[in-house]
Amino acid sequence: MFFASDNGSGATPEVMAALARANDGYTRGYGADDLTARVTAELRRVFDAPDAVVHLVATGTAANALALACLVQPWQATFCHRHAHIAEDECGAPEFFSAGAKLVLVGGAHGVMDGQALANALETTGGSVHGVQRGALSLTNVTEAGTVYTPAQIADLTALARAHGLPCHLDGARFANALAATGATPAQMTWQAGIDVLSFGGTKNGCLGVEAVIFFDPAKDWEFQLRRKRAGHLFSKNRYLAAQLDGYLQDGLWLARAAHANAMAARLAAGLAQMPDIHQTHPVQANVMFPEWPAGTHDRLEAAGAVYYRYPAPTGREGARLVTSWSTTEADVDAFLSALRG
Amino acid sequence: MFFASDNGSGATPEVMAALARANDGYTRGYGADDLTARVTAELRRVFDAPDAVVHLVATGTAANALALACLVQPWQATFCHRHAHIAEDECGAPEFFSAGAKLVLVGGAHGVMDGQALANALETTGGSVHGVQRGALSLTNVTEAGTVYTPAQIADLTALARAHGLPCHLDGARFANALAATGATPAQMTWQAGIDVLSFGGTKNGCLGVEAVIFFDPAKDWEFQLRRKRAGHLFSKNRYLAAQLDGYLQDGLWLARAAHANAMAARLAAGLAQMPDIHQTHPVQANVMFPEWPAGTHDRLEAAGAVYYRYPAPTGREGARLVTSWSTTEADVDAFLSALRG
Amino acid sequence: MFFASDNGSGATPEVMAALARANDGYTRGYGADDLTARVTAELRRVFDAPDAVVHLVATGTAANALALACLVQPWQATFCHRHAHIAEDECGAPEFFSAGAKLVLVGGAHGVMDGQALANALETTGGSVHGVQRGALSLTNVTEAGTVYTPAQIADLTALARAHGLPCHLDGARFANALAATGATPAQMTWQAGIDVLSFGGTKNGCLGVEAVIFFDPAKDWEFQLRRKRAGHLFSKNRYLAAQLDGYLQDGLWLARAAHANAMAARLAAGLAQMPDIHQTHPVQANVMFPEWPAGTHDRLEAAGAVYYRYPAPTGREGARLVTSWSTTEADVDAFLSALRG
Amino acid sequence: MFFASDNGSGATPEVMAALARANDGYTRGYGADDLTARVTAELRRVFDAPDAVVHLVATGTAANALALACLVQPWQATFCHRHAHIAEDECGAPEFFSAGAKLVLVGGAHGVMDGQALANALETTGGSVHGVQRGALSLTNVTEAGTVYTPAQIADLTALARAHGLPCHLDGARFANALAATGATPAQMTWQAGIDVLSFGGTKNGCLGVEAVIFFDPAKDWEFQLRRKRAGHLFSKNRYLAAQLDGYLQDGLWLARAAHANAMAARLAAGLAQMPDIHQTHPVQANVMFPEWPAGTHDRLEAAGAVYYRYPAPTGREGARLVTSWSTTEADVDAFLSALRG
Repeated sequence: MFFASDNGSGATPEVMAALARANDGYTRGYGADDLTARVTAELRRVFDAPDAVVHLVATGTAANALALACLVQPWQATFCHRHAHIAEDECGAPEFFSAGAKLVLVGGAHGVMDGQALANALETTGGSVHGVQRGALSLTNVTEAGTVYTPAQIADLTALARAHGLPCHLDGARFANALAATGATPAQMTWQAGIDVLSFGGTKNGCLGVEAVIFFDPAKDWEFQLRRKRAGHLFSKNRYLAAQLDGYLQDGLWLARAAHANAMAARLAAGLAQMPDIHQTHPVQANVMFPEWPAGTHDRLEAAGAVYYRYPAPTGREGARLVTSWSTTEADVDAFLSALRG
Repeated sequence: MFFASDNGSGATPEVMAALARANDGYTRGYGADDLTARVTAELRRVFDAPDAVVHLVATGTAANALALACLVQPWQATFCHRHAHIAEDECGAPEFFSAGAKLVLVGGAHGVMDGQALANALETTGGSVHGVQRGALSLTNVTEAGTVYTPAQIADLTALARAHGLPCHLDGARFANALAATGATPAQMTWQAGIDVLSFGGTKNGCLGVEAVIFFDPAKDWEFQLRRKRAGHLFSKNRYLAAQLDGYLQDGLWLARAAHANAMAARLAAGLAQMPDIHQTHPVQANVMFPEWPAGTHDRLEAAGAVYYRYPAPTGREGARLVTSWSTTEADVDAFLSALRG
Repeated sequence: MFFASDNGSGATPEVMAALARANDGYTRGYGADDLTARVTAELRRVFDAPDAVVHLVATGTAANALALACLVQPWQATFCHRHAHIAEDECGAPEFFSAGAKLVLVGGAHGVMDGQALANALETTGGSVHGVQRGALSLTNVTEAGTVYTPAQIADLTALARAHGLPCHLDGARFANALAATGATPAQMTWQAGIDVLSFGGTKNGCLGVEAVIFFDPAKDWEFQLRRKRAGHLFSKNRYLAAQLDGYLQDGLWLARAAHANAMAARLAAGLAQMPDIHQTHPVQANVMFPEWPAGTHDRLEAAGAVYYRYPAPTGREGARLVTSWSTTEADVDAFLSALRG
Repeated sequence: MFFASDNGSGATPEVMAALARANDGYTRGYGADDLTARVTAELRRVFDAPDAVVHLVATGTAANALALACLVQPWQATFCHRHAHIAEDECGAPEFFSAGAKLVLVGGAHGVMDGQALANALETTGGSVHGVQRGALSLTNVTEAGTVYTPAQIADLTALARAHGLPCHLDGARFANALAATGATPAQMTWQAGIDVLSFGGTKNGCLGVEAVIFFDPAKDWEFQLRRKRAGHLFSKNRYLAAQLDGYLQDGLWLARAAHANAMAARLAAGLAQMPDIHQTHPVQANVMFPEWPAGTHDRLEAAGAVYYRYPAPTGREGARLVTSWSTTEADVDAFLSALRG
């Protein structure tokens, strides 16, 4: 009954197998190996983006912060949701990598950026030399609230940014779950919706630790490579990052794994919906949910062996964050629901 | 006949086995797992340093730059060898992580810092507000020239730094090779010789990508953790970094692997020494060497399938860097020598 | 009829005279001159703080950003009012000088930070390695809304910060106006109210360009000096910064100058209060005010020669920012009121 | 007998008069005043550069560091002389303003960069992702050794940099003295010799504290303005910076003032040359010299009231740095020589 995070799961069998395959023999270092080339080609194919620049790093924070540093100058601002991972959960990585660029926090219910709020923030930023200038837009899909943007919603927000000439970044730590939830293609969710650079997550959906940064415009290729090296994020044995994605992308299994995680969340949410005293803070659309329940429930669940994060519910009741993953089983879900029923 | 770098080798069987073992089940993220705790305890035991702070990162550049950022203020300088990896091969990572602290480059033959040159550099740095201030000393063992400091040599240099109150860092990307070459214990080579923080390399000696940063003084623990997170170097699935070191340290195999690499280098050097036209630019003391040979040799060796880096020899002759590793075989060495003989 | 800003005024006669006096002969550079020593002693006397560290810079942004950089680490946050000068009008200087520390924006009506909002912000910042940590509190007096904190209000807010161990900064670009408005002594408004470091403004109240940074705890003296030099804010001919404050502080004229500016604002506000269609967005307590008036007023005033900033009024009516200074005359005020009456 | 530095002198009468003139009435802030416009136009005329971008700051370190930050990326290097002011006397300002770009130190006798050494440094920097990349060239005229580049020498060095596509900066803290020494025009010494941006010094030659940054290519205008504001170097009362240059440039007096300083240095050097035991470490070409003399001389001169910096002479004898300025008199020089004779 582990629902603390999808990063608490192990790696999928196909990822582990790819890793073992990649361990054979000698290769050139720093990404000049055949496996890195193959994975690059495969991602270009998956995204229908033959000119995309693809580089691998090991963590989501590195992917986001390096990508954004290529988009904003130190005296500019990145517009992001008030509860974005880059704002709340990266210990200031965007500021560090960008030499001090600001984040301008934009509101919106259920983790989804409000278009009017973004328009206002864009309008009141920049212009004179006294304030920071408009730099970039960053969205997250799946959002921190577990909700999912459709490609059309993303396109609406990026259009506002583009009207001011701003480039747009998508934090896709749970990108596969967002695709599985919407049925959108990778291209539809990204460059066709106005996204210039994507943090394509692998870690949470069954890798050990790998994210691809995908620039749909190749202009930033060399700058990114220099920033990655300078930040200590260039692996000498890059084949082991590539190998993870090799296994991840194999036979489209990455989408199947995410669809499974979403299905387990739906099963869990359906069970919770049956219980009169339990309410979801946000709509459940992918593999993360935030139920609220009566006082005493936490203690009871934990005594039964459930593992998850306690979360402050806006209503003051007991709140929880529950996350399913590729390895969550129906039995896990049912045991949790059973423990909840008491 | 791969002698390009020890980072061109794969991972050892014991490391791969540990990785597979670690893949089982769920764990808490970000280093709060049992395997991380076990590896921490094991490194403390290996270093006879029960209070040491141990944190894992995936690359040597991250280890060095994060460690140094904890030692120097932005207006200070790190003293390092003119050809130190931090000076020449990290694309300015020390400056990035430290918010602009300088490196003061100190000379010394064969990659070994000269004591008098260090004393002079220390003497002429700092004091008035106009120049940067003395910050830290950083040494590298095995050096970039393939030579090895003894613990006594390290102690002499750290004593000069400590006389000015400076902390001392050791870049141990090939730390195991240095120990194997000198017979020193981990403690003798580090805290007993005046080292405050070590970048303990795993990647080049048979891991996939892991380095431990070991602080012998625990005062910087929390600062390091915040800097690591902020730099995107905290792994959510930290168990996979820990697993590598678990396999690496198992049964003292890490030292045996390094001793093997050194032995292969010694065999190679002995063979080269037999050839009248070949000269070593630096003494061969561990697993890296820089031979020089007559014009035309490069083409001949590469035609025979040898892989290594061409390197400018100070004499203007053809120069090479040859690196052996845990996976180099006697047959590799002999084939290389045979190709060289023509 | 110049009400655009108090920085549009010239320097007072006594400041100009002090500058001329200081121009005689040779002095040691970089603050090692007698005049700098004299001004330092005088400020210590004025603040009843014999151990205070005093350093001069030429701009308010430099004073604020250098002071804050001494208080916060790059992975920490400064808590400030949502509309603080450091947040809105310094083009990211706090982020630049601190190597990327965040500002956490706290609300509060009329430019005055709300205690409960600060308490909440403090409560929800820091703790885990994932977010930035609590760093410092920064207040502004006179506030950006033209209102004034009493010493007791400052003490209440600094007490909240100190409960978390945080140091406290006061942006006193209009410090003299705040003292004149409240009758508080310099000591009461600063260290006796929990302030650790003050940006003591001279520029807006009749100097050419000088601010003193006053640390009531001397521990940061050397760090500040290094940061100032490194940022290009150490004047070789420091006597000309000191001379300005020498003239400024002479015979307590600085407070009289500020009291005059406040009195001119009060006269202006009293006149405005007589006009039925004019409303003040914020209480008028010092020398800055934000009146709102009917459509068409701007054009009429400007045609009559009035100079001031148009400002968006929250009600959607025409809004203005009017600032009086040491050189504003009753005739200026009366002419403005007369133009307004039409 | 003050020869410690030209920054120990006061301001010229014409500069003080211009300051007094500028103090009249109200002006718009932040450089939107008429005086700033007039000085900008005058500098464009002086440099025969009608499109030049001109911005004012108060210190030489600010001018240099802001200019260079516009030329180099954080992962690049600025090539400068080993003893450049930016390398030795700015406490790391170039690194701070550029977010950690390196300085690559280039040798050359008597403060003059050696062309071959620059060519070598350019050749061995950049290329692979592992090292920092080539960024910019920075020269200083008058050099730190008191010697002077001719326009032809500058052109030779900038040509080497331009062959790699690098922009070129000139630190002209003593630019007027360099012109006076060579007879070159401002245009000949700068853009006609390949200089893209100049730090045009005013402080050392009779201003209170002002330097103009002059970009001969206007592309960096807005970036510079944002960097200046963000660094706290934009003056609200910018008229007082402009006023200094207004007085400085009046009637070509700036060049006459510098020629006088050089003439006083020539007189001093001629007197020293008569004394058998005194040797100049570097050729005397402008207003700074480095004589060496027998042991005991320092004590004797200082007892007689001479003020200057003791400097380590390369020969181990007593060394001094003597600087003349616009206010040095023949009587000062003769008194010094007389004291030296004993």
